[in-house]
Amino acid sequence: MKELFGNAVVGQSGGPTAAINATLAGVVRGVLENNKKNIAKLYGMRNGMEGLLAEDLIDLSAFFEGSEEKLRLLEQTPAAALGSCRLKLPKPQENPAFFERLVAIFKKYDIRFFFYIGGNDSMDTVAKLTAYLASSDYEMKVMGIPKTIDNDLLGTDHTPGYGSAAKYIAVTMQEILRDCAVYRIPAVTIVELMGRDAGWLTAASAVGRLTGGMEPDYVYLPECAFDLDKFIADVKAALARHPNVVIAVSEGVRFANGRYVGEGSQSGATDKFGHAYLAGVGKVLEYAVRDSIGCKVRSLELSLPQRCAAHLASETDLTESAGVGKAAVLAACEGISGEVMAIDRIPGKTYAVAFAHHPASSVANGVRKVNPEFCTPEGNQVTDSFCRWLLPLIQGERKIVFQNGLPAHLTF
Amino acid sequence: MKELFGNAVVGQSGGPTAAINATLAGVVRGVLENNKKNIAKLYGMRNGMEGLLAEDLIDLSAFFEGSEEKLRLLEQTPAAALGSCRLKLPKPQENPAFFERLVAIFKKYDIRFFFYIGGNDSMDTVAKLTAYLASSDYEMKVMGIPKTIDNDLLGTDHTPGYGSAAKYIAVTMQEILRDCAVYRIPAVTIVELMGRDAGWLTAASAVGRLTGGMEPDYVYLPECAFDLDKFIADVKAALARHPNVVIAVSEGVRFANGRYVGEGSQSGATDKFGHAYLAGVGKVLEYAVRDSIGCKVRSLELSLPQRCAAHLASETDLTESAGVGKAAVLAACEGISGEVMAIDRIPGKTYAVAFAHHPASSVANGVRKVNPEFCTPEGNQVTDSFCRWLLPLIQGERKIVFQNGLPAHLTF
Repeated sequence: MKELFGNAVVGQSGGPTAAINATLAGVVRGVLENNKKNIAKLYGMRNGMEGLLAEDLIDLSAFFEGSEEKLRLLEQTPAAALGSCRLKLPKPQENPAFFERLVAIFKKYDIRFFFYIGGNDSMDTVAKLTAYLASSDYEMKVMGIPKTIDNDLLGTDHTPGYGSAAKYIAVTMQEILRDCAVYRIPAVTIVELMGRDAGWLTAASAVGRLTGGMEPDYVYLPECAFDLDKFIADVKAALARHPNVVIAVSEGVRFANGRYVGEGSQSGATDKFGHAYLAGVGKVLEYAVRDSIGCKVRSLELSLPQRCAAHLASETDLTESAGVGKAAVLAACEGISGEVMAIDRIPGKTYAVAFAHHPASSVANGVRKVNPEFCTPEGNQVTDSFCRWLLPLIQGERKIVFQNGLPAHLTF
Repeated sequence: MKELFGNAVVGQSGGPTAAINATLAGVVRGVLENNKKNIAKLYGMRNGMEGLLAEDLIDLSAFFEGSEEKLRLLEQTPAAALGSCRLKLPKPQENPAFFERLVAIFKKYDIRFFFYIGGNDSMDTVAKLTAYLASSDYEMKVMGIPKTIDNDLLGTDHTPGYGSAAKYIAVTMQEILRDCAVYRIPAVTIVELMGRDAGWLTAASAVGRLTGGMEPDYVYLPECAFDLDKFIADVKAALARHPNVVIAVSEGVRFANGRYVGEGSQSGATDKFGHAYLAGVGKVLEYAVRDSIGCKVRSLELSLPQRCAAHLASETDLTESAGVGKAAVLAACEGISGEVMAIDRIPGKTYAVAFAHHPASSVANGVRKVNPEFCTPEGNQVTDSFCRWLLPLIQGERKIVFQNGLPAHLTF
């Protein structure tokens, strides 16, 4: 069988992470090390599929050839260096013309290898493109490479990008716990963390318990039904133990009836223009504590830095994120297609991983929740087993290159 | 004249910073290096004056003797390691009994040197104690050592703690700007930063312009009267230039009539319990953009990490913060009292500082605003001269000791 030869294209899609560019660097390394055996040239799509459709492509082989320094800089640059998009592809049977247009572009640039780095929607793109190609005579290898800080993709031990977000949350929570501990006046601090459907990020706030650090009094995840009376009782019990109570709560916590706790504040409250206030769960719980307990209380959100704080990326995450990108190129060159890369954890006393791949159709559009054994029976904390599972993923710090006091970032 | 000999006490007060413990380490070093010439032993007050009044003291000389490693750990620990308080002292003439009680404690522990690390209220404590001692026969040297992330103390080029907060803001703003740049859809991101009375922290968000980085489209400080119509016009002009508009705004921006912009949202908006929503200026501007322009818009606050993100402290700030603590001990041993330490910038092409001191009464309770020449005439950006003034303060990164993926912190 004749081996496929041609060009490759890579795109980034979905929300930014601190490690998505490390995966891009891994794809670049994979192509450069292929040494034109299968892949002549690597194009980058600007803004994902939008850039491909507009033929807005960059010659990444030329840009990075012979420059390990540029690749290292790319790895420490947060957010999607190629730009991102949120384009959901049509179903092949509903809009074959869309895919014919794509294939025309692939033919024009002789693209035989397609790499797409992204979250659930991006894996859906990989699945649809694969489905279309199955009934087409255009031969191209298509690989999805996951990234999401949410860690909620199926078929992988953890997602590239999660370790860095978890490390940022774990470190920042230690600093906030220290900050909250300085006064003797009873006070409740509520920290709202990202995670609409799964509590992986919020759970990371507790890992300090294994390292001799501090931990929040309670951790509430979307996986455990939230009860406001139980929450108030929890806070009162903590205040009886010590004056500085700190709560970590996932933006996606829900009542037993499935309604988001954050929804409560969206009904009735309006500003002077008549707009509803879209306060999150942190604000809802802040007002509940003020109402029921009356002590000093505040809420805060860690917000965007959770996904873009590249200055504090996990070395383990960056290494794996780059590794999975390179492994995708190797797999495609070996003839694999229509698959999504995954990270398998190798059982044993020492943490080790292997890169694997699974059919895109089995991965796309599912949500992986926090394992039930990682939540305490009371539903207000994570277990030590979760902390032990997480700890390897936040190990190591990249030696970031700073220029003039700020981290250097790469721009195409 | 007989030199004073006895013990010393040090306390921390006011809000935490990432460098207040570096100053404490500097005081410890100053005392240890004094080698019992003037100071026999250094006590630490737990929770500032509250701990002193309760005689809740730690023998810091014994704790740190011969352990440079512990001192380095203290320097990388955020928030006040001794604990803090917000106790405002009475005026000596109104409550002499309060001061007599303090002096009785000083006598009991033979305390002849008093060091207080804190913000404006702490310098007020230094001034009042000094005023009382002037009419007392108890001899004690009293020194104030400033710290505040707000940089709003009089008599100093900048305050210990500001450089680290500014670096955190500058770095995080680069990461947020990267995060915001990935999509092509027009969107406005409003970042609310600390600074109720002065815009020093918010101004730091613009420094990337000097380092080859990005910068927010506009920067609004409390020093410049805010006009909502002008703000909307600014945002529209920016959207005409590029799709991703980023705004930095100080929590303390005010209209020309002196009313806080953040107050707008406090009138009328209530939650289901009837509580007023105390949204900040970020939310007010978010709703104004939604109302007037209608594009995608969000607001976020950097919140507590601005003052406690020790993992990203400025090496320059940590070095100066430690230096000013040690210099305070040297000054007191030379007979200086009733003064507050300051950092003078030595004019010249290369950045250099000298430590100075000024009477506490001249420093306490004043607020130093951002220099008028640091704001553009339009009042919606900072000048290059500000960025050049700031840049030396954010230089250098401490090699933080991590344990198991998290920064190591010191606990007494």
